[in-house]
Amino acid sequence: MSILVVGSVAFDTIATPSGRVEDILGGAATYFSLAASYFTPVRLVAVVGDDFNASHENVLTSHGIDTRGIERMPGKTFRWGGQYLDNLNEAKTDFTELNVFEKFQPHIPKEYVDTEFLFLANIHPTLQAAVRLEMDCVRLTGGDTMNFWIQGTPKELAETLKLVNVLLINDTEVRMLAGDKNLPRAAKKVLAMGPQALIVKHGEYGATIFFREGAFGIGTHPFRAPALPIEEVKDPTGAGDSFAGGFMGYIASQGEINREVLKRALFYGGVMGSFAVEEFGTERLQNLSRGQIDARFQLFRELTHLG
Amino acid sequence: MSILVVGSVAFDTIATPSGRVEDILGGAATYFSLAASYFTPVRLVAVVGDDFNASHENVLTSHGIDTRGIERMPGKTFRWGGQYLDNLNEAKTDFTELNVFEKFQPHIPKEYVDTEFLFLANIHPTLQAAVRLEMDCVRLTGGDTMNFWIQGTPKELAETLKLVNVLLINDTEVRMLAGDKNLPRAAKKVLAMGPQALIVKHGEYGATIFFREGAFGIGTHPFRAPALPIEEVKDPTGAGDSFAGGFMGYIASQGEINREVLKRALFYGGVMGSFAVEEFGTERLQNLSRGQIDARFQLFRELTHLG
Repeated sequence: MSILVVGSVAFDTIATPSGRVEDILGGAATYFSLAASYFTPVRLVAVVGDDFNASHENVLTSHGIDTRGIERMPGKTFRWGGQYLDNLNEAKTDFTELNVFEKFQPHIPKEYVDTEFLFLANIHPTLQAAVRLEMDCVRLTGGDTMNFWIQGTPKELAETLKLVNVLLINDTEVRMLAGDKNLPRAAKKVLAMGPQALIVKHGEYGATIFFREGAFGIGTHPFRAPALPIEEVKDPTGAGDSFAGGFMGYIASQGEINREVLKRALFYGGVMGSFAVEEFGTERLQNLSRGQIDARFQLFRELTHLG
Repeated sequence: MSILVVGSVAFDTIATPSGRVEDILGGAATYFSLAASYFTPVRLVAVVGDDFNASHENVLTSHGIDTRGIERMPGKTFRWGGQYLDNLNEAKTDFTELNVFEKFQPHIPKEYVDTEFLFLANIHPTLQAAVRLEMDCVRLTGGDTMNFWIQGTPKELAETLKLVNVLLINDTEVRMLAGDKNLPRAAKKVLAMGPQALIVKHGEYGATIFFREGAFGIGTHPFRAPALPIEEVKDPTGAGDSFAGGFMGYIASQGEINREVLKRALFYGGVMGSFAVEEFGTERLQNLSRGQIDARFQLFRELTHLG
């Protein structure tokens, strides 16, 4: 089954203890698309400027990603600059130039309207909701958001959360959204806002999925997937979006949506996040095989499963 | 097989968002002993003052803990006061009165010298080493330490680490001890200091065991156990010591020491830590059954294992 992602395509300038890169292809939708492309056909809705050329597009199309939804506008593509010199767990933003992204109004190509799996990457919640409402056949909607929207547009976000089946955010965002420092309590409050499942990303400690009672199966127990202890994290940019790509891509590749599928998807999310940080930008995600992915899935299993 | 623990018995005054208690029985060796007592016979070496009375001792002896190693000295028992009002993950110390603990010189009763499993709770590294060297039949030594010794007595600690088979410390301590912020790299450096295995406790995110190559079996892969998402942590005091008690107690209860046993022990460590925080002080640890413990072990399994 195809998956549609709506979000940012960007050029990033990144400094980490391992080095520095300038104006490399990035953006949430790019990372998501590449990660998901190893599991299922991906359709991409985004906006780029004149500086997005054929070689950039080729990175996507060579992975079978459908780029008909990429709108070209006069001007420059979204640019972000950030560094992780003191702390690999948190980016310090050096600059943000929205450029063509400032006026982004997602247009869903007619050929995409029947897509059954949807991921709303981190954009304005009102745009997220509009996209979801334009789609007719969606079986599962995943979504991301961030502190900026949680604090700045809480009402709009509340409306969007009613349309999202699985929300994927990090510890800090869950606590902020719920106004509760205790994670399982905060998770319960977020689930009461709309989503049937909440994935909390813990960075190097993995991720936990919390289920609303009765959603996707029986019970209320959460489930936890590990992250891989990695000796050299070259560039953490895009780890969360790659996680989402692995998670949603795996689900879309399966016929059924149930708890066992969601649990495996959580492992695949961790797997794709662990690859993403091994090289700068999307480099590692561009050069993977399904065999390497499944071998790492096994490693994640060995990392957590008793004999 | 019996396990011997050497460490502090204390009276704690604790404030958390759930309430406040005064002068309740605590100390690393107390938490460890109670947690381990559900798995194996425990022998305790510690020092107490005149204020340690029969009812305190009964808490231990009623769990079959051998208290012949508790030395009584004139004066008051070690007292600690702390709070977790702002942050349940880190204690803020209000006061520390070492009292009789200041001159603690562990004496191993003759009846204890043949003990095969040893846990050196967090005391001066020179005392830890002396205890280990006094024992003749030890098959496995576990040990704890803290920032105070890592920074204050690095040479003494380095000597002790050569005698410890499994070191159990938290993220911050591992990074401090290795002088490296990256966890798997820091773990490798700590393993080069002596221990065959290192357990890094991640608080609410569980714990990871790193193995030195070839130790306890084949391979270098780490293993990760979860923590239980708990909606109300009443009192985090002693969670780490209870973890160590469950971990070491389970190992001592098994005939063999191999990776599979250590992995299961890591789960039991998490299980005992998760019980400890449900009530103030040692209350929850005093009132458990092996059935409840094994049911929670199953819960930990369901929390992490794919079908």
